[in-house]
Amino acid sequence: MNHKVDLNCDMGESFGTYTLGNDRVILDYVTSANIACGFHAGDPATMRETVKLALEKNVGIGAHPGLQDLAGFGRRHMAVTPREVYDLVIYQIGALYGFVKAEGGKLQHVKAHGAMYNMAAGDAKLSEAIAEAVYKIDPELVLFGLSGSEIVKAGNKIGLRTANEVFSDRTYQPDGTLTPRSQDNALITDPDAAIQQVIRMVKENKVINTEGTETALKAETICIHGDGKTAKEFALHISSSLKEAGIDIQHIQKIV
Amino acid sequence: MNHKVDLNCDMGESFGTYTLGNDRVILDYVTSANIACGFHAGDPATMRETVKLALEKNVGIGAHPGLQDLAGFGRRHMAVTPREVYDLVIYQIGALYGFVKAEGGKLQHVKAHGAMYNMAAGDAKLSEAIAEAVYKIDPELVLFGLSGSEIVKAGNKIGLRTANEVFSDRTYQPDGTLTPRSQDNALITDPDAAIQQVIRMVKENKVINTEGTETALKAETICIHGDGKTAKEFALHISSSLKEAGIDIQHIQKIV
Amino acid sequence: MNHKVDLNCDMGESFGTYTLGNDRVILDYVTSANIACGFHAGDPATMRETVKLALEKNVGIGAHPGLQDLAGFGRRHMAVTPREVYDLVIYQIGALYGFVKAEGGKLQHVKAHGAMYNMAAGDAKLSEAIAEAVYKIDPELVLFGLSGSEIVKAGNKIGLRTANEVFSDRTYQPDGTLTPRSQDNALITDPDAAIQQVIRMVKENKVINTEGTETALKAETICIHGDGKTAKEFALHISSSLKEAGIDIQHIQKIV
Amino acid sequence: MNHKVDLNCDMGESFGTYTLGNDRVILDYVTSANIACGFHAGDPATMRETVKLALEKNVGIGAHPGLQDLAGFGRRHMAVTPREVYDLVIYQIGALYGFVKAEGGKLQHVKAHGAMYNMAAGDAKLSEAIAEAVYKIDPELVLFGLSGSEIVKAGNKIGLRTANEVFSDRTYQPDGTLTPRSQDNALITDPDAAIQQVIRMVKENKVINTEGTETALKAETICIHGDGKTAKEFALHISSSLKEAGIDIQHIQKIV
Repeated sequence: MNHKVDLNCDMGESFGTYTLGNDRVILDYVTSANIACGFHAGDPATMRETVKLALEKNVGIGAHPGLQDLAGFGRRHMAVTPREVYDLVIYQIGALYGFVKAEGGKLQHVKAHGAMYNMAAGDAKLSEAIAEAVYKIDPELVLFGLSGSEIVKAGNKIGLRTANEVFSDRTYQPDGTLTPRSQDNALITDPDAAIQQVIRMVKENKVINTEGTETALKAETICIHGDGKTAKEFALHISSSLKEAGIDIQHIQKIV
Repeated sequence: MNHKVDLNCDMGESFGTYTLGNDRVILDYVTSANIACGFHAGDPATMRETVKLALEKNVGIGAHPGLQDLAGFGRRHMAVTPREVYDLVIYQIGALYGFVKAEGGKLQHVKAHGAMYNMAAGDAKLSEAIAEAVYKIDPELVLFGLSGSEIVKAGNKIGLRTANEVFSDRTYQPDGTLTPRSQDNALITDPDAAIQQVIRMVKENKVINTEGTETALKAETICIHGDGKTAKEFALHISSSLKEAGIDIQHIQKIV
Repeated sequence: MNHKVDLNCDMGESFGTYTLGNDRVILDYVTSANIACGFHAGDPATMRETVKLALEKNVGIGAHPGLQDLAGFGRRHMAVTPREVYDLVIYQIGALYGFVKAEGGKLQHVKAHGAMYNMAAGDAKLSEAIAEAVYKIDPELVLFGLSGSEIVKAGNKIGLRTANEVFSDRTYQPDGTLTPRSQDNALITDPDAAIQQVIRMVKENKVINTEGTETALKAETICIHGDGKTAKEFALHISSSLKEAGIDIQHIQKIV
Repeated sequence: MNHKVDLNCDMGESFGTYTLGNDRVILDYVTSANIACGFHAGDPATMRETVKLALEKNVGIGAHPGLQDLAGFGRRHMAVTPREVYDLVIYQIGALYGFVKAEGGKLQHVKAHGAMYNMAAGDAKLSEAIAEAVYKIDPELVLFGLSGSEIVKAGNKIGLRTANEVFSDRTYQPDGTLTPRSQDNALITDPDAAIQQVIRMVKENKVINTEGTETALKAETICIHGDGKTAKEFALHISSSLKEAGIDIQHIQKIV
């Protein structure tokens, strides 16, 4: 039997007159779309259009809630309480749910964005707040989180299905956390090396960390980027490479 | 058989450190709460708390979407297209739905706020956009609108139940529209006169207009104000006066 | 003696992670930069960088205040009072002044943006509010406005120098107002026709209107666009065409 | 010769329809007003009105820039870079300067708000960014900062006059920093104890810290609060108590 993995990408990040990303193109390669909900990026019109596109292309729709920081694209850590995060997540999932319902679709998953994702990955209380919000809106939703992180643990604990997420273009530390972007070796810039890393993660459940040893991790969904000039090429490249390596790209619903 | 009418009030208008209104007190008198959704007022935490309070007091929960104008409290007319209004309404109903779902409640109605309400009242296209948004989210929702206005017509046309709304403290023009606030005689400042007006509207389906003649209109829900120093007194006063006049205050679900 | 005219362009319209326009390139061709101030577009970092660039290239720096509508890029008409417009203009000029002062430069002019510009052009009270705000911040500032409009009149009345602005790519109605964009013949899409129109406006103080007759108007500054794929080409084209026609492109300070 | 001290209060924190504080009353007791600039609180209309009031009452006007977090009132720490803080401070001082200039007044000082103030107090780089922004706008401005903090050091280093600020209602740790609000003993709730603490700080340049020993510090300006039900009473109380203790309440310009 083949290995299988979900491919996800952040989407719907345009705002007003500003456009970002190549959603229409990338949607041909991924199985999950994380759609911005208007706090760190996105707006109601973009959400509607992106939901519609994802439905047309049979891509799983996810809410991608972020901190209320449009100016910083939700990437700046903020001292938010678990209660604040809970409220932010409920609000934003709800807002996206509105468009999904109006378009006759179904919401599949939730993935926190940027600083919310990163802060929660190492913080049980923030992760529990996210998991509770997701569960209370709909216990059938799948919660995406950094592989092995507190987000995944909190999701499992409350009774949600979870998706362990890995990154193709980031290096990992011995404990399974991502090397911080502030370090020189944080990024994998060679597309082939990036793809070899994810193939190994999917097939062998492990990664070669920054110290050259192996770290065990689960790879149920892979995050790829939708912006940048080479986004389309990389999407095509990773997609065909996974297939060649005997890995089926599948909806997360068939994996977890 | 007694006459019956729903009593509604705008709620959840606090924002961050700023508080507005007397929600806890007013909820003892009304049967419908129109909860701000974060665009003209309100924020995620306030929405959660207000939904919870309304559920505790068995008050029907409504989304109260407005224009994206926090600085102007959603009261300034803006040249928005029907498509923009549709998107604003879907987004905001969805956001409130998130909290209602999380708290185990049910969304009852939708009432547009401020400039969105006023612009749509006389504009069939904007009203159809609002009605379509409401219908697509949930055809069981009740759409509130100025009595006899385009909002009510659009709601009926698409197949929604609608609630014809009247105002106790505003005067009416011969054609059934509200006298603009820019005119001296727009407001009824005497509480007793205000209450006599609504009693007549509910029992006789007509109002004495600004020219002293009668205008026919339906009164299925009455809007009262939750802010101001006398809000509680007026809520109590109108509530007991309606009962004395043989008018039952009922959930809108039992009226339309 | 040669004719002369100022060439202006809207700038600094990027926001956070979103980029817009080709400021660095366009600054080589224009003599006045209208820099967004954070309400309809722009942010503090973009303002700093744009001010710096304009100083390096010896381009006159202008504040470009707009309505508080980032989602609509300040293009949607809003029912704002003269007092609200006054406050918006003071705030935004002040904010840009901060960066100009910090970089050791001098603020040259003010041009209202989008809906604020268009509403004021035909509204004496809004125009007087803008002119008063500009005058109170610094009576040496030049106020840009649609040629012959209420903005220019209000500026002259309060004692400001004003710059009558014309558009190369828009057609004019017999009364000297722009043909609304909602009409088919609003835009001049042929670059050569656009350039011939401005040359005639600068040299002959008149334009052929949509009815084929002549309308008198003053052309002290020409607005060109900085976004779009052909922005650079058009800037080069209009710049060289004006010179060939014997028109000097000069700072507005030497014209009004 | 009498001791002297400046008395400052945060002001202009209303926003749109929301009102906060008792500015008109408190302005009778203080000598410095820190006026919110629209990012954590305040809006253009409130800024204009507060500047006008302060001028009428001969109170020194200060810009009170904060993080861009209206929802959190600028109190939530955010991972902002020194460059971002520099830009935020330039923008906000500039915006307030606009109103001060328009009203014919003069800007006296700058005090960072909330999380920006607290983060900078212990962070030399953020403090240098603030000091540079203030200096570049106007080297005559006085920079307020927590007594002995990095803000004061950075201000002195760049050549600004600085005002060492103390708090009447907060306890101090042995190293002169404020006891974090998360600790039980952070606040002094007894008004008399609060006043005795500031009198000692002003007259003896020391405070009894949380360990019961003395910590040396300078008290050039005292911060009092303008919101809350007892704000007016406390302002009157501290004002008269200082005078009785032989301490003159003076503009900061006569102190530093």
